Amino acid sequence: MQLLKFLPGAALLVPSVAFSQQPQHRQILQIVDQHAAHFSATSKTIWEYAELGYQETKSSALLRRELETAGFQVQSPVADEPTAFVATYGQGAPVIAILGEFDALPGLSQAASPDRSPITTGAPGHACGHNLLGSGAALAAVALKEYMQQNHVTGTLRYYGTPAEEGGDGKVYMLRAGLFRDVDVVLQWHPDSENIIENGGMLAMNSARFLFHGVAAHAAMAPERGRSALDAVMLMGSGIEFLREHIPSNSRIHYIITNGGAAPNIVPDTAELYLYARNPSLPVLGDVWNRILKIGQGAALMTETTLEVKDVGGTANVLPNDALAKVAQRNLEEVGGYRYTADEKHFAEELQKSLPPGGAGDLDSTALIQPLRPPDPNAAAASTDVGDVSWNFPTIGFETATFVPGVAAHTWQAAASAGMTIGHKGMIIAAKAIAITGADLFSDPQLVSAAKTDFQRQLKGRTYASVIPAGQTPPLDYRNK
Amino acid sequence: MQLLKFLPGAALLVPSVAFSQQPQHRQILQIVDQHAAHFSATSKTIWEYAELGYQETKSSALLRRELETAGFQVQSPVADEPTAFVATYGQGAPVIAILGEFDALPGLSQAASPDRSPITTGAPGHACGHNLLGSGAALAAVALKEYMQQNHVTGTLRYYGTPAEEGGDGKVYMLRAGLFRDVDVVLQWHPDSENIIENGGMLAMNSARFLFHGVAAHAAMAPERGRSALDAVMLMGSGIEFLREHIPSNSRIHYIITNGGAAPNIVPDTAELYLYARNPSLPVLGDVWNRILKIGQGAALMTETTLEVKDVGGTANVLPNDALAKVAQRNLEEVGGYRYTADEKHFAEELQKSLPPGGAGDLDSTALIQPLRPPDPNAAAASTDVGDVSWNFPTIGFETATFVPGVAAHTWQAAASAGMTIGHKGMIIAAKAIAITGADLFSDPQLVSAAKTDFQRQLKGRTYASVIPAGQTPPLDYRNK
Amino acid sequence: MQLLKFLPGAALLVPSVAFSQQPQHRQILQIVDQHAAHFSATSKTIWEYAELGYQETKSSALLRRELETAGFQVQSPVADEPTAFVATYGQGAPVIAILGEFDALPGLSQAASPDRSPITTGAPGHACGHNLLGSGAALAAVALKEYMQQNHVTGTLRYYGTPAEEGGDGKVYMLRAGLFRDVDVVLQWHPDSENIIENGGMLAMNSARFLFHGVAAHAAMAPERGRSALDAVMLMGSGIEFLREHIPSNSRIHYIITNGGAAPNIVPDTAELYLYARNPSLPVLGDVWNRILKIGQGAALMTETTLEVKDVGGTANVLPNDALAKVAQRNLEEVGGYRYTADEKHFAEELQKSLPPGGAGDLDSTALIQPLRPPDPNAAAASTDVGDVSWNFPTIGFETATFVPGVAAHTWQAAASAGMTIGHKGMIIAAKAIAITGADLFSDPQLVSAAKTDFQRQLKGRTYASVIPAGQTPPLDYRNK
Amino acid sequence: MQLLKFLPGAALLVPSVAFSQQPQHRQILQIVDQHAAHFSATSKTIWEYAELGYQETKSSALLRRELETAGFQVQSPVADEPTAFVATYGQGAPVIAILGEFDALPGLSQAASPDRSPITTGAPGHACGHNLLGSGAALAAVALKEYMQQNHVTGTLRYYGTPAEEGGDGKVYMLRAGLFRDVDVVLQWHPDSENIIENGGMLAMNSARFLFHGVAAHAAMAPERGRSALDAVMLMGSGIEFLREHIPSNSRIHYIITNGGAAPNIVPDTAELYLYARNPSLPVLGDVWNRILKIGQGAALMTETTLEVKDVGGTANVLPNDALAKVAQRNLEEVGGYRYTADEKHFAEELQKSLPPGGAGDLDSTALIQPLRPPDPNAAAASTDVGDVSWNFPTIGFETATFVPGVAAHTWQAAASAGMTIGHKGMIIAAKAIAITGADLFSDPQLVSAAKTDFQRQLKGRTYASVIPAGQTPPLDYRNK
Repeated sequence: MQLLKFLPGAALLVPSVAFSQQPQHRQILQIVDQHAAHFSATSKTIWEYAELGYQETKSSALLRRELETAGFQVQSPVADEPTAFVATYGQGAPVIAILGEFDALPGLSQAASPDRSPITTGAPGHACGHNLLGSGAALAAVALKEYMQQNHVTGTLRYYGTPAEEGGDGKVYMLRAGLFRDVDVVLQWHPDSENIIENGGMLAMNSARFLFHGVAAHAAMAPERGRSALDAVMLMGSGIEFLREHIPSNSRIHYIITNGGAAPNIVPDTAELYLYARNPSLPVLGDVWNRILKIGQGAALMTETTLEVKDVGGTANVLPNDALAKVAQRNLEEVGGYRYTADEKHFAEELQKSLPPGGAGDLDSTALIQPLRPPDPNAAAASTDVGDVSWNFPTIGFETATFVPGVAAHTWQAAASAGMTIGHKGMIIAAKAIAITGADLFSDPQLVSAAKTDFQRQLKGRTYASVIPAGQTPPLDYRNK
Repeated sequence: MQLLKFLPGAALLVPSVAFSQQPQHRQILQIVDQHAAHFSATSKTIWEYAELGYQETKSSALLRRELETAGFQVQSPVADEPTAFVATYGQGAPVIAILGEFDALPGLSQAASPDRSPITTGAPGHACGHNLLGSGAALAAVALKEYMQQNHVTGTLRYYGTPAEEGGDGKVYMLRAGLFRDVDVVLQWHPDSENIIENGGMLAMNSARFLFHGVAAHAAMAPERGRSALDAVMLMGSGIEFLREHIPSNSRIHYIITNGGAAPNIVPDTAELYLYARNPSLPVLGDVWNRILKIGQGAALMTETTLEVKDVGGTANVLPNDALAKVAQRNLEEVGGYRYTADEKHFAEELQKSLPPGGAGDLDSTALIQPLRPPDPNAAAASTDVGDVSWNFPTIGFETATFVPGVAAHTWQAAASAGMTIGHKGMIIAAKAIAITGADLFSDPQLVSAAKTDFQRQLKGRTYASVIPAGQTPPLDYRNK
Repeated sequence: MQLLKFLPGAALLVPSVAFSQQPQHRQILQIVDQHAAHFSATSKTIWEYAELGYQETKSSALLRRELETAGFQVQSPVADEPTAFVATYGQGAPVIAILGEFDALPGLSQAASPDRSPITTGAPGHACGHNLLGSGAALAAVALKEYMQQNHVTGTLRYYGTPAEEGGDGKVYMLRAGLFRDVDVVLQWHPDSENIIENGGMLAMNSARFLFHGVAAHAAMAPERGRSALDAVMLMGSGIEFLREHIPSNSRIHYIITNGGAAPNIVPDTAELYLYARNPSLPVLGDVWNRILKIGQGAALMTETTLEVKDVGGTANVLPNDALAKVAQRNLEEVGGYRYTADEKHFAEELQKSLPPGGAGDLDSTALIQPLRPPDPNAAAASTDVGDVSWNFPTIGFETATFVPGVAAHTWQAAASAGMTIGHKGMIIAAKAIAITGADLFSDPQLVSAAKTDFQRQLKGRTYASVIPAGQTPPLDYRNK
Repeated sequence: MQLLKFLPGAALLVPSVAFSQQPQHRQILQIVDQHAAHFSATSKTIWEYAELGYQETKSSALLRRELETAGFQVQSPVADEPTAFVATYGQGAPVIAILGEFDALPGLSQAASPDRSPITTGAPGHACGHNLLGSGAALAAVALKEYMQQNHVTGTLRYYGTPAEEGGDGKVYMLRAGLFRDVDVVLQWHPDSENIIENGGMLAMNSARFLFHGVAAHAAMAPERGRSALDAVMLMGSGIEFLREHIPSNSRIHYIITNGGAAPNIVPDTAELYLYARNPSLPVLGDVWNRILKIGQGAALMTETTLEVKDVGGTANVLPNDALAKVAQRNLEEVGGYRYTADEKHFAEELQKSLPPGGAGDLDSTALIQPLRPPDPNAAAASTDVGDVSWNFPTIGFETATFVPGVAAHTWQAAASAGMTIGHKGMIIAAKAIAITGADLFSDPQLVSAAKTDFQRQLKGRTYASVIPAGQTPPLDYRNK
């Protein structure tokens, strides 16, 4: 990683301030650099595994092995999730957690190439960069542990191996299993196309499969004897569309049809619609969800079918933590961004040709750190089970430029970037920022205390309640069609 | 009316058999001919009035006056219907009823012209020929009464002035008021484009206004606060469309939207869908109706609105009576059809040019009587409150060629035909057939008895139940938007 | 098979007339009886194979082997269909064809048990009894061939092994390949729950996959960038529902959704609706089909997606042949029905318990032959590629009681019946009726000539055009999802 | 109006600063106070007239009379709008325009009572407070004119009487007629429930009636012959609902059905959907509008109907003007808010009981001036033809607390407030702020110049194009159903 001396045209952005590094930070950054190539290779291996949620057998094993080798004690499996684990170093307060994810996305197989080239058509791919996420978090943990050991820092460092972030909500069940019980502060990061602090935001989400049961009949000879489950799905879909106008416009509802009937000449006796709903606010989401349930019931009533709602999962929005955000921003600026080599620049330019008009971002922006932004409840966003963690413990997130500027997550372009040096460079920045922030937390009890105070302020007296019904077990087969 | 000597090419049809008239029939036919011009003029006056259902003030008064002048005792108003009446001649058994209707249809104003020429655009018109129906039935009643008086025939002859056949179900409330209590046999006719006996058939029908209540809101500033009654109407409509495949395909459901919101920038807090459902079978209709109600409820559930079902009316299908049909067929054949004058033929040819391709019927067919056909439950058909009468008393119907062959009821072409000599000629044939059939019933107790026996057979032990809820009063304002 | 002496209560049905058998018929019936057990076993083996359309490798091979062993010359594969074949015996005129089918239905695996017991859940099953169809036709062919050989009958006997009747339209491509070129008369049969002649009827059918292409986008972060192919499918479905009211009510349209999106959080860039449309009349079907295409185009226009119509297949309705029907009826009556053993009766009674209320038929009716019925264009019906054959050659069909009375085709109950002795008994009746009708055709040139005359009369000058576009090849993979 | 000495708890709001009034401002405020009672009465009279757009005959005449009496020269009618007028005082530069509106809203008749009490059920009412708007603007104009006369101020003062703001877009046609040609700055105000500067914002809007033409048919006897225009409306509506997800979520689309068929038993040959679409950005709105047109075309294609798009009207968003906003804010603060009397407070408290939970605002807030807020493109908003003015000339707007806090425009509660002293007090504040801002503009050429500079900056080189097609005339009958 190059440090930047001169940044023309960066008036609106914050240049890196590497020159002001504290000595202990400098030590940690050096440790990270020593392990960087190794964990880049780890990330590449997981990128090649490209395992779907709750099926990350090899990816989880690889990360566990790395952490064990580095001296962590690993507990696995946990929380009834075969691929979840907790790796611990040290003891006593404070307890600082680093989150690691490693699941891939279906259908997004892609070579590390700037044009659309699936390795295996239809196979999964790391289009959200979780190969980098889990490996970068491990790199941070390993470096921080070395630093703690070398400097006799007391406290507990934990790496949480959290499966199935993409819709399987692995962290929620780990929370329920009490695995975070004694945590003081949570650090996490996510691949992105810019270097920025993620202080809260994201959308609370709920999801379910709406399975309708009807009565089959020969569709040509006796359609009047049938009660079509597909009709119910169609009418539920229409009902959802009519709902859109009459809910807060920062909501999101989207669905697919996972069972649309077996054969045209048979009135379908089962049909299924799989739906996500989201809103920045958990209570608003609750209201919207109740109305979605009514729409499903109405569709069943209209068609003389019955409705079975199969809850899949859901997450809270991410609570901000201004105390942590301030430190995180400072540290990310201290670490600074990075610049492309000529080859990387060529790769990025080629890849940007596949983006929609106006979609390409400034390639020089990878060298910059974005200023801290206030949360915008209307901003388009995704959802993450980090949200549930953030409602229970002070949490802060980093995002770094692992994707070519302008590339969105969940695209083949993201998978391509995540499999080569651009992704690796972004990952290393994240590892560094996490590691020095962890060191700050271990060395400064007031920082931990301020984080906790701000956490209570953000809660505003509200209490956390997961959208996932109590007693539900991890949906280990949610990726099987 | 000309008697026909020679009918080339009528192999499949039954020519008139005027030469075989019984003496008493011949006497009646002469009386009808004497009054024919007068009642043709009456029909023309009612055609000009063109009054909608329950608003037939002038039309009803004119017919009452004619019957009073002819010596009937008139009771009016009856059954809480201002334009309903009962005109009676004679006393004792048997009691023979003739039904008369006189309501027009909205929006079908039309001159007696072979091209589309509304008298007043948007105004009502006699597109179902009820101006002929009421006048022709009166002509039959007056002629039969004269014949009875001249020949000292005992028994009771009644003319029922029945309003609002087109959706207002005037006869149902007259039945409920007990006005038919002592009737033995009911004779009725309807304008058509051919001469034929209508022995049962038609569709049982139910209808209601589905009025949804929601919550208004500014549609741009706070659509999320609104609960759209129009959304409920839209979803109910969609639900109905999905229902079509899964009910017996000889059903009919059709609807309009009578309230679709007040202004685009206000989320509608009321909206209304007005629906008819029909099936040849009353019980099947009942099943279909229950499913329509569920669809309405489902739409309300989906949209957080409430549903108010306002029953409008409904009718039974028409029960056949084979005993009466046999006599009616014989008598209609005895009366025979009629031929166009050169002017009428020119009118008919011009008018037929406006019919869809293949829609024009054979102009010579007005001279013929169609053979008696078995009822076909899949045949397309309309509905009539004659149906309810037919479930209570032996009933038979005549149809005569008052419309140019190929012309359907409820079209401007029907209104045009009903306002000129083609309509009048058809009407006179109907009057003659009714009158001589009435004479047969007065003179032949066995015929009345056979009609009653067949009536019981057709009921098959079923008991009549109107689809209109008990206690409902006539919807006198159903034609006010 | 027992001949019936006494049939109480069969006033409306035609008892068998076995006593009047002609000597040559008697000889053939004996030959059929000799081979009956063997071909029952063949049918059972094919029932166990339960192979889907165009995948009937083992079933086709087994039937080919049987026919080769019996002395037929077998040509295979033909018409670019790996499982199609033609087996020929004899030479010269007339050429009499017997049709054999052997494909199973997806998802209807069922043991020969009177309660719902899939052998393998989700696997195919012979719910249309084509295991009996192909084997029974082979039994008829083998018996007729023996009879011809023994009696030096001249002429050509052909067995057409026709794959993929269930939606794959195997016969249409065999017709196009010229394999029927010199045929004089076609005999076929189908399993049913009563013994009856199928003289025409069935529905002309067309089918296609409507594949929409849109633009993917993250459904939470940038739904406005997506163009949803699923929206197009939903709107096309709605459009179809609105169409139902405005096409002839003896039409049938039914569809499923074969691709409803990949993941809820991705705006679907492909989605697919798979649709069948049917009508008794080919030209009416053509009109309906054009309107369906417009609905698909309208849905694409509405959603800024593009539509790819992938024609799957289609069939003509079955033309009647009154000359053949008369002979077929007489011969089926001559063969007569059959009676259940006590075990079979018990099986049938148990199985009938699973039928909907009122759905169970009279168990004694298997002993009877239904009277010849006129075709009813409004009757509910399925479709078959026999229809296309019937538009090219005089064709007649038999149906026999292989299913327990009240059981409909395409149900597990049908699959259960087809796998045990009830199915076998019905199959043997069909084989007998076909064989003696074939013998009649070989011995009576006037009968062949009358069949051809009636064929021309039924065509009414119309010329056959398949609904499958010219140049299309057999959809060999239509059963792969 | 009371001046406020002490405002506890107003930390976030700006108290009035009446004590710092400049002398010339003080003079104007006194003149306004002298005329305040008179123009309050004028507003009450117009409130009673409650005339709909383009039908404001009496309201327009009353305002013209007031302005003529006060010494303005009145030109009327103008721009082919019978109720539009321009009133002018003075001559030469600068030309300062004040806008006046006076149209009511359908169906919102309401007494000046805190509970729902229509004066005439279903009649129009001043639920947007335009009775106050037009009168208050006239009060400002009259006072400013007196001040100019007394102080020999040069320049031109114009009052534009602009009809049919509510959907009729009166100002757009007045712009096209060149009536604003020489204007330098435009001042306007609008009733609201708080005192605040409206610096830009609002939504660009387009609207049209989508009239479908089909083919009528008897819905029971021959529905297959009909092509339902209502089906097209239903499918267009559904298409719109599916569109919502895939356009920017700060868009608004809403529609009603203005013709949903004539009678249930007739397949509707005409049906109409009346739709508004809005977005903060004119170009985005243009994109959305094109997609709406496609949806209409798709619905026509699906139903074999034809579509006639009848453009009704549309407006631009309101461009901000920061130079004017600064002055306006200062002046509004100088004027200050007002306090309720005990009676008014009682009225307000009673009325707030009818608001939804959480909807009631702080009654003391009428005494405060809100701080100047930056425009928020995601904020819910309405549309106004002031937008089109603002794209042509520097424009600034005031809003004052004429409605009880928490009351939204277009509700009966707004109409109630607008008809009594609460409305009058708010109106007087607006008149004062406009009048002193006008005086500032007349006295300070640099202010006019700064306004023009900022206007050009806001345009960003874009050129104005109305969404209303060129050549369209004012839709004078748009309020006739």
